[in-house]
Amino acid sequence: MIKAGIIGATGYAGAELVRLLLGHREAEIKWYGSRSYIDEKYASVYGNMFQLVEDHCLDDHIEELAKQADVIFTATPQGFLAGVLTEEILQNARVVDLSADYRLKDVNIYEKWYKIKHKSPQFLEEAVYGLCEINREKVKKARLVANPGCYTTCSILTAYPLVKEGLIDPHTLIVDAKSGTSGAGRGAKLPNLFCEVNENMKAYGVASHRHTPEIEEQLGYAAGEGIIISFTPHLVPMNRGILATAYAALRKIEQKDGTRAYPSCEQVKSVYDKYYGDEYFVRVLDQGTYPETKWVEGSNFVDIGFQIDERTGRIVMMGAIDNLVKGAAGQAVQNMNLMFGFEETEGLRMPPVFP
Amino acid sequence: MIKAGIIGATGYAGAELVRLLLGHREAEIKWYGSRSYIDEKYASVYGNMFQLVEDHCLDDHIEELAKQADVIFTATPQGFLAGVLTEEILQNARVVDLSADYRLKDVNIYEKWYKIKHKSPQFLEEAVYGLCEINREKVKKARLVANPGCYTTCSILTAYPLVKEGLIDPHTLIVDAKSGTSGAGRGAKLPNLFCEVNENMKAYGVASHRHTPEIEEQLGYAAGEGIIISFTPHLVPMNRGILATAYAALRKIEQKDGTRAYPSCEQVKSVYDKYYGDEYFVRVLDQGTYPETKWVEGSNFVDIGFQIDERTGRIVMMGAIDNLVKGAAGQAVQNMNLMFGFEETEGLRMPPVFP
Amino acid sequence: MIKAGIIGATGYAGAELVRLLLGHREAEIKWYGSRSYIDEKYASVYGNMFQLVEDHCLDDHIEELAKQADVIFTATPQGFLAGVLTEEILQNARVVDLSADYRLKDVNIYEKWYKIKHKSPQFLEEAVYGLCEINREKVKKARLVANPGCYTTCSILTAYPLVKEGLIDPHTLIVDAKSGTSGAGRGAKLPNLFCEVNENMKAYGVASHRHTPEIEEQLGYAAGEGIIISFTPHLVPMNRGILATAYAALRKIEQKDGTRAYPSCEQVKSVYDKYYGDEYFVRVLDQGTYPETKWVEGSNFVDIGFQIDERTGRIVMMGAIDNLVKGAAGQAVQNMNLMFGFEETEGLRMPPVFP
Amino acid sequence: MIKAGIIGATGYAGAELVRLLLGHREAEIKWYGSRSYIDEKYASVYGNMFQLVEDHCLDDHIEELAKQADVIFTATPQGFLAGVLTEEILQNARVVDLSADYRLKDVNIYEKWYKIKHKSPQFLEEAVYGLCEINREKVKKARLVANPGCYTTCSILTAYPLVKEGLIDPHTLIVDAKSGTSGAGRGAKLPNLFCEVNENMKAYGVASHRHTPEIEEQLGYAAGEGIIISFTPHLVPMNRGILATAYAALRKIEQKDGTRAYPSCEQVKSVYDKYYGDEYFVRVLDQGTYPETKWVEGSNFVDIGFQIDERTGRIVMMGAIDNLVKGAAGQAVQNMNLMFGFEETEGLRMPPVFP
Repeated sequence: MIKAGIIGATGYAGAELVRLLLGHREAEIKWYGSRSYIDEKYASVYGNMFQLVEDHCLDDHIEELAKQADVIFTATPQGFLAGVLTEEILQNARVVDLSADYRLKDVNIYEKWYKIKHKSPQFLEEAVYGLCEINREKVKKARLVANPGCYTTCSILTAYPLVKEGLIDPHTLIVDAKSGTSGAGRGAKLPNLFCEVNENMKAYGVASHRHTPEIEEQLGYAAGEGIIISFTPHLVPMNRGILATAYAALRKIEQKDGTRAYPSCEQVKSVYDKYYGDEYFVRVLDQGTYPETKWVEGSNFVDIGFQIDERTGRIVMMGAIDNLVKGAAGQAVQNMNLMFGFEETEGLRMPPVFP
Repeated sequence: MIKAGIIGATGYAGAELVRLLLGHREAEIKWYGSRSYIDEKYASVYGNMFQLVEDHCLDDHIEELAKQADVIFTATPQGFLAGVLTEEILQNARVVDLSADYRLKDVNIYEKWYKIKHKSPQFLEEAVYGLCEINREKVKKARLVANPGCYTTCSILTAYPLVKEGLIDPHTLIVDAKSGTSGAGRGAKLPNLFCEVNENMKAYGVASHRHTPEIEEQLGYAAGEGIIISFTPHLVPMNRGILATAYAALRKIEQKDGTRAYPSCEQVKSVYDKYYGDEYFVRVLDQGTYPETKWVEGSNFVDIGFQIDERTGRIVMMGAIDNLVKGAAGQAVQNMNLMFGFEETEGLRMPPVFP
Repeated sequence: MIKAGIIGATGYAGAELVRLLLGHREAEIKWYGSRSYIDEKYASVYGNMFQLVEDHCLDDHIEELAKQADVIFTATPQGFLAGVLTEEILQNARVVDLSADYRLKDVNIYEKWYKIKHKSPQFLEEAVYGLCEINREKVKKARLVANPGCYTTCSILTAYPLVKEGLIDPHTLIVDAKSGTSGAGRGAKLPNLFCEVNENMKAYGVASHRHTPEIEEQLGYAAGEGIIISFTPHLVPMNRGILATAYAALRKIEQKDGTRAYPSCEQVKSVYDKYYGDEYFVRVLDQGTYPETKWVEGSNFVDIGFQIDERTGRIVMMGAIDNLVKGAAGQAVQNMNLMFGFEETEGLRMPPVFP
Repeated sequence: MIKAGIIGATGYAGAELVRLLLGHREAEIKWYGSRSYIDEKYASVYGNMFQLVEDHCLDDHIEELAKQADVIFTATPQGFLAGVLTEEILQNARVVDLSADYRLKDVNIYEKWYKIKHKSPQFLEEAVYGLCEINREKVKKARLVANPGCYTTCSILTAYPLVKEGLIDPHTLIVDAKSGTSGAGRGAKLPNLFCEVNENMKAYGVASHRHTPEIEEQLGYAAGEGIIISFTPHLVPMNRGILATAYAALRKIEQKDGTRAYPSCEQVKSVYDKYYGDEYFVRVLDQGTYPETKWVEGSNFVDIGFQIDERTGRIVMMGAIDNLVKGAAGQAVQNMNLMFGFEETEGLRMPPVFP
C-alpha cells in the first residue's frame, strides 16, 4: 500500500483523483491539499464523500508532503509545480503533474502559449509525457510524469495511428473538439454559471487554445516532422465528456498489387487495431459506429471511430473520453500504476455509467 | 462465484444490474435476457459495454434459466413474473424481482392499483419485501425477494425511524417526490423525448401513483396501524436521482423531566442514528445539511436530512437516492448479497460520481 | 410613449425587463442602470441584445433618473430602494420595485426575515402589492408598486380562490416549490455553477425562505385571518420555470341539498373559473391536466391544475409560471400597464416557447 | 390579413410556425393540418397553446386547403409535397415547403441522397430556394419557395460572403455543425429519449448527411464552380440551436499596394459587412466575439463571428441560429413576408430569450 498526496484536491480533477483512489487496492490518500479550504473537512467541500473521507484539507507544502508520501499528484494551476519543484522532492516521492508545466519540451513554446515564465526548466528533459498507451515504457521508469491535457489525450489518441503510419497528411489535420463544462474547473466564474452554459453552445480559444502546441508536439513525433494543426474547443452543456472530431486528407498508400490508392475502411481499421488491439482502455469501435461521450462516462476508456469520405478524400476520426478520467485523474492513476509496477488497470476497471 | 441471470437486461434497471455485477467478485452474469433484442449483441444495445460484455441477448425462458443460474433478477413489466413463476423455479434458483408483483401483501390492493390480475398470489406470503435495512434477516433466508420501488425506497427510509418511534403523526404524512427521467424507462414514448423533458418540470400520477400503497403498507407496519398518505411524483430534467421531500406534523414526546414537548433537533437526529448509525448505505447528514441527488449518483447510498419548522409544528424530512442503484439494481444486488451470505456491500462500494 | 428606467438592468430579471420592453409599443428604455458595468455597452453584457440595444450602462442615481423617466423599475438587492426612496422621486416618477422592500406591510416581519433594517418604512402603507389579478384597481392608482416575488406569485395565485372561498383549510397548506436556476441570479457563486446544478436537485432555505411571510400575508387577507404555512423551495436543473405543488385539507361545503360534503372537481373548477375566468394571464387547465413549466416558458402565463385526493381528503393544487416573466419582469410590465392605463397585456402577448 | 394553412402543424417546426404566426399582424392560421392528431384539439397536443389556439387538427388535404388559404406551409416528411403538388394548387395558393423536396435543382442528386423517387420534378425549375438574404428578389415573385434546411441556412450564411468574394478556397471547406435535439423532430424514437441525449454528445450522418449537397449547390453558385465539402452534424443536449464551425484555407488577395497577401481581420470583416451590413437578421459580431446559440434562441437572428489563424493560414468561421426559427419556421415566415409584400421582419422582431 503506497501513500498518495494530492495538491489541489478540491478542484474537479483533484476530486476525481479522490474518487478513483478510494477504490484503489494499492494506494491510500494521506494528504488532501487545498489552499482554499485548509482545515475544513474534505467531505464538507464534496458532499458525495460524506462518511467516505474523514480527513480535513491541508496546505500545499510539497516538501513536507514529499517526505510523507510515495506519490504526489499536483492538480494545480499552471506554474505552481514549476515554482516549487526541487531535486529533493523528486528524490523523496514520484510526482504526477496534472498541470501543463512539464508537458512541452520547448520552454519557449510553453512561455509563449501560457504567458508565464517557467521557473524550473531543468526538469523538462527528465519529465515523461504520460500518455500511457504511447509512452508506457518511459513512464515506468519516470520520477516526474507530465499528465497530458484532456483535449490533447483525446485528440492525440484519435489521430496517432494514422499519423504514425502515414495514412493521413498531418498538415491538413483539423480537430474540432467539444467538452463538458467540468473542464472549465470549479472556479466561481460568470461564464460557467448554469444559466450561461445550459441550452447553449459556443467555441472559445479559437486558434489560441493552449492544448494546441501539446497536440502538435506529440503528433509531430509520430509524423517524424514538425506539424501545425487547427484546434478549436467548444463548450457543451454537459458535466463530463470530450468528443474530438478530427479531419484530415487521406494519403494514397501502396496496395498489395503495387499500385497506390487511398486506404480502405479495413486498412484504416487494421492500423488502429495494430496500435490499440491490446490496449484495455482504447476501444476501436466497429465500423459504422461512432463514439458517444456517454458511453465512456465515469470510466478511463477512449472510444474511437472513423468514417472515410470518398467524395472529399478526407477521413473523419472521432474520439470520446471522460475529461475527468482519461483526460485527467484516471490517466494520472494509470501513470501511477505504471510507475509503481501495479496492474495498469488497478482502480480503473469500473464500466462506464449509462445513462 | 455464483451464476446470475437477468430477465429484462436491456431496460435501464437491467443495464444497471449489468454494470454493478461486472464489478462484483462473487457473481457473474450468465444470461442477458431481452425479449426485444434476442440474438443481438448486448454491447450493440448499450455501447458503454463494448468489449466488456461479449454476450448476445437471450429470451426470457425463466424455467430454463432457473436450471442454469443461482439467482435470477427480473427487471420486467408488472405481471411478467407473476405469470410465469413456479415452485420449481424457486427450487432451482433464488429470485429477486424488480417489478411490483410481490411487493404488496394484499392481492386486492395490487389488482386495484395495477389494474391487472395477479396470476400467482400463492407466493405473496413467502415473498420478502427487500428493503434491506429494515428486513435484513428475512431477506437472508428468502427464496423470493420483492425488490422495492424507487420512490418507495427513498420515501420509506426517509420517514421510517420517525414513524417507528412515534415522533410524527403518520396520518399527516405528505411525500413530494422528484425523479430523474431514467425512472420512466427506455421505452420510446413521446413524453420522454429529450425536448419534452428538458427545461421542463411537472407532476404526474397525482393521487394515483402505484408506489403509494407500497409506502403505506411498509410505513403502516412501522406505525403499527394502517395509514393513508399523500404521494406526488414529479419528473425532473436529469438522468438519475430521486429527492423525496416529506412533511409531517411532529408529535410531542416525553422529555427527561417528565413533560411532553416537541422533539428537538438532537432528539430527531438521535432517532435517525439509532436506526441508521450502523448502516453503511444510509448516511444521516449533519444538521443543517440537506441531501442533493448528485451526492449519491452512481452509488447505493441514501442521504437523509431534516429540518424542524417550529412555526408550523411540522418536520421536513428529505431523502436522496440514485433511482437506478438504491432504487433498483443496487438494492437488488444488496439483496443478493444478503441471500447468498456475501459481504453486504460487495460490488456496491463505489463512491458517488461528482460532478 | 413613456420613458422607462431600469436600475439593476444586468441581472436576469433586469435583462428580462429589457427583452419585454423592447417589444412594448408604449414604453421605451432610457436608462440601463448597472452598478457593475457602468459605461460598458449593454450588448456586451448580454450578447442577445447585440444590435438591438446600443446604449451603455449607467449608474444607479435614482434621483436623476426620476427626473428623466416616467417609470422606474428597480431590480436590485433587498434594501437598495428602501435606502434611497424619497417623496420627491415618487412625485417625479412611478416606481415598480422588483425587490422585497415594500412587499410586507409589517416592518418587523421584513426586518426579521431579511435581517436588514428597513430605511423608509414610511412608504410601506402607500405601496401596493402588485399581484395584478388580485389588486388590479389599487395598482392602477399606485405611485409605488411592490412587485411580488417569483415563488409567491406562483404560490398565491395557485391557492388564492380556494382559500378565499373557504374550500380548503389554510392552516394545513404546504407548498412544495421547484424553481429553475435563473431565480438564483447572475452572481458568480459556486453553488450556481453548471456542474453543481446540472443533474442535481436539492431543497434549500427549508422553513426559512423569505418568500414565506409574503405568501402568508397575502393568503391571510384571502382567508380573513392570519395563517402560517409550510414552504419549501427546491433548485431544479433548468433555466426558467417555477412549479408549485400545494397541499391542503379540503373543507366540507354546503351542497345544493343542504348537506355538507367535500367539494367535487366541478365545484373546485368553478371556483377557479370564478376568479380567473376573465383573466388573460391565468389559465385554469382542463381537469386531469397538470401544468408543466415548459408550457409557460417565456410568457406571462400562470397555468393552474388540481387533483382531489379522496383517499386523504386533501387537494393537490399545482401552478406553473416562468419565474423571470410572471415571476418578475412580466408582472412588472403588467403593473406598469395598469399604472399608465395601457392595455394590460401590452408587450406581454407572446405565446410560450416550446420546446 | 391573409389566410395561412399549415400541413404538419404538430411537428416541432410546424408548432414553431404556429407560435410565430400568432404574433403576425398580417396573417392568421386557418388550417392546422396533422395526420396524426386529426380532430384532436391542437392545444391538447401543445399545452403551451392552451387558450391561444381553439382549433382542432385537420387532415392534409392540400387541394382543399389551397382553395381556402393564401399561403400553405408544408412542414412534412420528404416526398410528401412532391407527391401531391399540382399546378392547380399553385394557382390557388403560394407554397412554402419546409421539406427538402424542391431545394436541390438536380433531381438525380435529390434521389441519390434522399433515396426516394421525386414525383414532381417539373416544379423544380420554378421553385425558389428561400434563403432570403441571398435570393430576396426571386422570393418576392415566387409561387413555390423551398425553405432551406436548418444546417444549410447556418452553414451557407456563415461562409457565403467569403466564398463569393474569393477570400477562401471553397474546396477546403469543412463544416463541423452542432445541433440541439429539436432538429431530430418529435417522433418517439429511442435515440431521442431524454436519457440517451442528455449528458451526451455524438456525431451522426458523417459524410452522408442530406444537407451536404444543399450546401454544396448554394455555395457552388457563390463560388462560380461546383464544390465538394466536408459536413459533419453533431447532436447536442439542448433543445434549440445550431452552431456551425467552418474551416477553410484563406486565399491571398490583392492589397492596395498591388501585392498579394492573406486578408486581414478588417478585410474579412468588411466583406461580411458588405453582404450583411443592411441585413436585419444577420448580425456580424465584433472582432474577438464568437457566436453562442443562446444569444439567438427564440429569434430569427443569425450571429456570425470569425477568427483568422495565421499559423495555419486558415480561417475559422462560426455561425449560430435557432434551428426552429431561422432554420425553419422563422425563415418560412420571412419568405411569406417577402412573397406577400409585408415588412420583411413582421412577426419576427422578438429579441432572443436569455437565459
